[in-house]
Amino acid sequence: MSGNRGVVYLGPNKVEVQTIDDPKFEDPHGRRIEHAVILKVLSTNICGSDQHMVRGRTTAPAGLVLGHEITGEVIEAGADVEMLRKGDVVSVPFNVACGRCRTCKSGDTGVCLHVNESRAGGAYGYVDMGGWIGGQARYVMVPYADFNLLKFPDRDQALAKIRDLTMLSDILPTGFHGAIKAGVGVGSTVYVAGAGPVGLAAAASARILGAAVTMIGDFNPERLAHAEKMGFTPIDLSKHDRLGEMVEAVVGVPEVDAAIDAVGFEARGHSGGEQPAIVLNQMMEITRAAGSIGIPGLYVTEDPGAVDEAAKQGSLSLRLGLGWAKAQSFHTGQTPVLRYNRQLMMAILHGRLPIADIVNAKVISLEEAPAGYQDFDKGAAVKYVLDPHDMLRAA
Amino acid sequence: MSGNRGVVYLGPNKVEVQTIDDPKFEDPHGRRIEHAVILKVLSTNICGSDQHMVRGRTTAPAGLVLGHEITGEVIEAGADVEMLRKGDVVSVPFNVACGRCRTCKSGDTGVCLHVNESRAGGAYGYVDMGGWIGGQARYVMVPYADFNLLKFPDRDQALAKIRDLTMLSDILPTGFHGAIKAGVGVGSTVYVAGAGPVGLAAAASARILGAAVTMIGDFNPERLAHAEKMGFTPIDLSKHDRLGEMVEAVVGVPEVDAAIDAVGFEARGHSGGEQPAIVLNQMMEITRAAGSIGIPGLYVTEDPGAVDEAAKQGSLSLRLGLGWAKAQSFHTGQTPVLRYNRQLMMAILHGRLPIADIVNAKVISLEEAPAGYQDFDKGAAVKYVLDPHDMLRAA
Amino acid sequence: MSGNRGVVYLGPNKVEVQTIDDPKFEDPHGRRIEHAVILKVLSTNICGSDQHMVRGRTTAPAGLVLGHEITGEVIEAGADVEMLRKGDVVSVPFNVACGRCRTCKSGDTGVCLHVNESRAGGAYGYVDMGGWIGGQARYVMVPYADFNLLKFPDRDQALAKIRDLTMLSDILPTGFHGAIKAGVGVGSTVYVAGAGPVGLAAAASARILGAAVTMIGDFNPERLAHAEKMGFTPIDLSKHDRLGEMVEAVVGVPEVDAAIDAVGFEARGHSGGEQPAIVLNQMMEITRAAGSIGIPGLYVTEDPGAVDEAAKQGSLSLRLGLGWAKAQSFHTGQTPVLRYNRQLMMAILHGRLPIADIVNAKVISLEEAPAGYQDFDKGAAVKYVLDPHDMLRAA
Amino acid sequence: MSGNRGVVYLGPNKVEVQTIDDPKFEDPHGRRIEHAVILKVLSTNICGSDQHMVRGRTTAPAGLVLGHEITGEVIEAGADVEMLRKGDVVSVPFNVACGRCRTCKSGDTGVCLHVNESRAGGAYGYVDMGGWIGGQARYVMVPYADFNLLKFPDRDQALAKIRDLTMLSDILPTGFHGAIKAGVGVGSTVYVAGAGPVGLAAAASARILGAAVTMIGDFNPERLAHAEKMGFTPIDLSKHDRLGEMVEAVVGVPEVDAAIDAVGFEARGHSGGEQPAIVLNQMMEITRAAGSIGIPGLYVTEDPGAVDEAAKQGSLSLRLGLGWAKAQSFHTGQTPVLRYNRQLMMAILHGRLPIADIVNAKVISLEEAPAGYQDFDKGAAVKYVLDPHDMLRAA
Repeated sequence: MSGNRGVVYLGPNKVEVQTIDDPKFEDPHGRRIEHAVILKVLSTNICGSDQHMVRGRTTAPAGLVLGHEITGEVIEAGADVEMLRKGDVVSVPFNVACGRCRTCKSGDTGVCLHVNESRAGGAYGYVDMGGWIGGQARYVMVPYADFNLLKFPDRDQALAKIRDLTMLSDILPTGFHGAIKAGVGVGSTVYVAGAGPVGLAAAASARILGAAVTMIGDFNPERLAHAEKMGFTPIDLSKHDRLGEMVEAVVGVPEVDAAIDAVGFEARGHSGGEQPAIVLNQMMEITRAAGSIGIPGLYVTEDPGAVDEAAKQGSLSLRLGLGWAKAQSFHTGQTPVLRYNRQLMMAILHGRLPIADIVNAKVISLEEAPAGYQDFDKGAAVKYVLDPHDMLRAA
Repeated sequence: MSGNRGVVYLGPNKVEVQTIDDPKFEDPHGRRIEHAVILKVLSTNICGSDQHMVRGRTTAPAGLVLGHEITGEVIEAGADVEMLRKGDVVSVPFNVACGRCRTCKSGDTGVCLHVNESRAGGAYGYVDMGGWIGGQARYVMVPYADFNLLKFPDRDQALAKIRDLTMLSDILPTGFHGAIKAGVGVGSTVYVAGAGPVGLAAAASARILGAAVTMIGDFNPERLAHAEKMGFTPIDLSKHDRLGEMVEAVVGVPEVDAAIDAVGFEARGHSGGEQPAIVLNQMMEITRAAGSIGIPGLYVTEDPGAVDEAAKQGSLSLRLGLGWAKAQSFHTGQTPVLRYNRQLMMAILHGRLPIADIVNAKVISLEEAPAGYQDFDKGAAVKYVLDPHDMLRAA
Repeated sequence: MSGNRGVVYLGPNKVEVQTIDDPKFEDPHGRRIEHAVILKVLSTNICGSDQHMVRGRTTAPAGLVLGHEITGEVIEAGADVEMLRKGDVVSVPFNVACGRCRTCKSGDTGVCLHVNESRAGGAYGYVDMGGWIGGQARYVMVPYADFNLLKFPDRDQALAKIRDLTMLSDILPTGFHGAIKAGVGVGSTVYVAGAGPVGLAAAASARILGAAVTMIGDFNPERLAHAEKMGFTPIDLSKHDRLGEMVEAVVGVPEVDAAIDAVGFEARGHSGGEQPAIVLNQMMEITRAAGSIGIPGLYVTEDPGAVDEAAKQGSLSLRLGLGWAKAQSFHTGQTPVLRYNRQLMMAILHGRLPIADIVNAKVISLEEAPAGYQDFDKGAAVKYVLDPHDMLRAA
Repeated sequence: MSGNRGVVYLGPNKVEVQTIDDPKFEDPHGRRIEHAVILKVLSTNICGSDQHMVRGRTTAPAGLVLGHEITGEVIEAGADVEMLRKGDVVSVPFNVACGRCRTCKSGDTGVCLHVNESRAGGAYGYVDMGGWIGGQARYVMVPYADFNLLKFPDRDQALAKIRDLTMLSDILPTGFHGAIKAGVGVGSTVYVAGAGPVGLAAAASARILGAAVTMIGDFNPERLAHAEKMGFTPIDLSKHDRLGEMVEAVVGVPEVDAAIDAVGFEARGHSGGEQPAIVLNQMMEITRAAGSIGIPGLYVTEDPGAVDEAAKQGSLSLRLGLGWAKAQSFHTGQTPVLRYNRQLMMAILHGRLPIADIVNAKVISLEEAPAGYQDFDKGAAVKYVLDPHDMLRAA
């Protein structure tokens, strides 16, 4: 380990790569921990939820080291680590989870009760998620390493597929969780709201789950074009606001079996302005009776930049009467990555899930991260992967 | 069959028992059907959802024969009926369901796609539910009889337990559905909003599902007293509006494992006025991370009597940001009675579920129905059971 | 309807196409039924389970009209049929099911309690399955038609895909049921015992369910070659009997996540003779701890041709101690086709499941059925589809 | 910690209480571990599976310290233990589980892949289960303590209910697992084979899960009498061997919804001798079509004392043909205690599950253990609880 550097949030629309402290075997309270490892970060991605912070839509403090999508190599392990050794290449779930509390034992690692004093659930480099240092950096510490880390079976194979495997830390399981919770199965008709990386990952998940047809709705023509190129059916929301009609044109009926909200609280409507409830209300409209709606898109408890007072407290005007009449169910929350990442890794390693191409992975250096944030914020149809040790681009 | 009479809705707060047509082997379009039976109604209950109509909170037309909680005896069967014969005593699920469409085949009989042209789901004697004639009457027709009807194994045993068995047509399965969807299991801590009959049925369901402790919240002192007498823990909402504190006083933490909304859209807050979203928002607050919220309470797509324009369209201001942060799920819709009624019947017949006492069943004659409606509307802590042939009170 | 003909079982290894009675609106007891339709049979397949009868391994009586894999066109409908009309093209699940009994209501249509007096479960043209006349014929009657039949959304589209859609009546759902019960999901490693049509359908199912790798074991080189051509990994059981080693050579460990027995009671071992328990015992060996074993392959209660007295009563010497030590579960029984056929149809219609090619469908005329039986019995790597009205070969 | 003593297996039918080593922070290979705690054992029960060893029906070596049903108080904790502190009263699941491997992450802690080199699954004081020292002792070491231990919320409350809570380490979850896997739910009719402690725990579990009626079959009149006293329906197998008839006399049909094998491989038949497959074969007979059979009773891979060569290898002659015809499923394996113990604790603490009375707990001193083993082996209708520090009998 020599010379750590990381992407630091400095204020709305301002991130910088700075020299930062080397990771230590310490929790956010400074307590020594033996269950951690130090990773050399091989790849680390920029996430749409990072954008919420960088846009100033959260209460993130200046100085925060960003990054929760991490793939790395073990370079040092604590005394309690039994299953990992130096040189292992591993995927880090974005959730920090203890593996010991009630929710972790039930597989709900997205709402671990032990790693964050202020609420359920922890994450690396994220506001209100427990103070764990982010991994858009050269080195990072991962606690409860035996529990949290997914070890790739073979180092060379892993490095050869790393552009795909880097998506296991968040975006692919998050899309998959949305699809699972929406009840996608073999033969389903599916609508995904949002053609950003999570939307594309949800669509890829729907496909490998056997969906008959997968539509993706967005306003961004570049993203829609990419979605179409990947074999999904684009729904151009800029045309008009009658989503049911557009769905009917594809599948013959104005409803789908399963719908996934990959947009979240910064949703906007056909008319242009932000309408935080519009996606959810459209979902109720186009989802069949007795259907489920998966909501991996982020909704927040506080949104200082919201359009109205209710939305600032995370309250949305939802057509619950409609959903109730259709006997729908709604599934929210951070994805428990551990529940899915092993099986998704297997699908990638056996060539069944070309997720890097589907989300249009673009590898850039760590130092280029600020430019990546800017491009992504403008709606670039790419998923930025940072390469802190210049290994991906060398390969 | 001689001389049918039934409870007829005539306008807001006005119901009358009138002479009505004898039931026919015809669907609401007048088409002859062979899969139906005619029942002599042995018992038929007044439901809280009938109250929504009678209060004028729906678009129900004058002249509607009310009643969807029906227990009866087969007196005539169509040519296609193979499993029932004259004299069989049966429970009628409140949902009219065809047993042949996609949702019925999946067990989602609450949103049958075939019995109601205007939307998914049918019911007897209810606005917008397909035009099937209600059963607060002496005789009623039940279509798709082999599919819909639950036959009691023994006539004498059934008549002896009919005060309990009459709850199988709606209220008991509805409470049970809420408990199931809220994830109640052995050892759960449970909060039920609303101490009316559905709330009590939900509490009874939680208990037989093995709940460790079941709380019921209400403002009505008479209902709270009855709930306590039945062994549940009353939560007096009139005291203050900090529900978490009241929960903590019972179970040591301000959250429960499972929460059930047995109130619906006519909810009101501590301050007095109607607040249609208050129960759901409280549920998110007091339900644990990764928990589920069961919503058997009715929410509607149109509410002419609502407090604001949004609520008139069935839109509620929900704290979805809070629910999302806690990774909760929400389960709505009419109960598919068929999914549960056989097993609940078995529990009743073997003496494990004294539901008549729990909901405080009070048997009155058919002719007394209007008075029953009035008392129930005032918040009487009873469940009214009509006795159209004077058999229950005779027994 | 003019001039019915059908494939008739006459005794061990003897089938003939004969002129048979036209179908009637009657159940096997001669009772008039209004819930039935008469179908013009468009395609009807020879099934491996027909072979058990034809080989004389059952107590099937001479004179039985064979055939339970039926796709047809409605030419006449009873008075109680509400959802189908003349000209509709439909798939017939092989199970005869009433849609009204307890097991049907739970979706367990493979063990309907109402259509067969001697045991749970009915089928067309099969010994001990209720006496319903088989459909390897020009015309056939289907009872409880609204419930049982799957209508294809578009006639022309259906006829264009009929070689695939004909697999929906049995073999594809049967393979799928095996895969589902074995717990196959995204990323699973899967072993299928048997490369006959059901084995191939199970493998196709595993793939669309997202399996990472699907192996198929058999002794028959032609079948193994076809499996490999379809993209599955062949396991040549004739090489040696150490299955774990062969699995390890493919996936790196001697176990799979999920195993499917598509062989059944006529299994044989490496040494040659019949060993009815060998497949199940191998499954326990190669399935991971906490794994499930799906058993769509048929095991019978009476097998007059069995190798020993125990097997004649359907008793097998199973290594349950091994399965128990590994905490495995075992899932048996006739497939409830209705639970799966709609979703599988959607996958076919949207081009995701080329099942005809995967099982190597070969269309022959009805009159050629006896030759088809013979070839299939010799282990031909094909699935025979009969074309009673010369429509498939014309297309 | 001063002066450890424990129950030691010395050979068939020979156990002794001896002075043994104090527990250390070491795994069975002598490696220092920081994730462990040392417990002062407050109660520890004799289990039926201990009897298999003591009877010489396993390959257990002389010198083994017995005991896997442990409740204790933390007296020392390793550096990695974060959630427990000195004085906490805890229940120890009998499975040793790492909480970090694939099966533990899925909740299948009964087949942990990390704590036993020879096979999946570990336990304290048991042959072939990883070499972890047993807890029929004054002190014992528990590894992966944060993960494995269930902490009781209140020490005084725990000590007051310890006769019940001591059943959480094995017997109660084991009975519950059987009931869950058999599909017991509200209204089920249930048959439990075996009226020993596990059978009684299964029956208690069925009751709290809402079973309508729970039968228990056995030959032992004392055990049957106790079962009846506890409110279950006894089935006296000594009368004749037509179990279906006896079931029919109780529930009106010769089948139950759910059946649980709480006997295992040392089963015997009506005629007297050992018949290891008889219970499983009876289960298939009396379980309804589409039903499940839960098999918590132990079946082994090696049984030196078995009646025939097949059984010595754990092979049983099972009527799989019958089970297949009825579409049954079979669920085996060690119970993953962690999946159930928290919820069962809640039921006990809130007075819903008087398990000590149901299994007829009898507290004796540690030194009396050998006598307890003898009595239990003779079929005493009790569950022996050892009291190593004389705290239970003092209370």
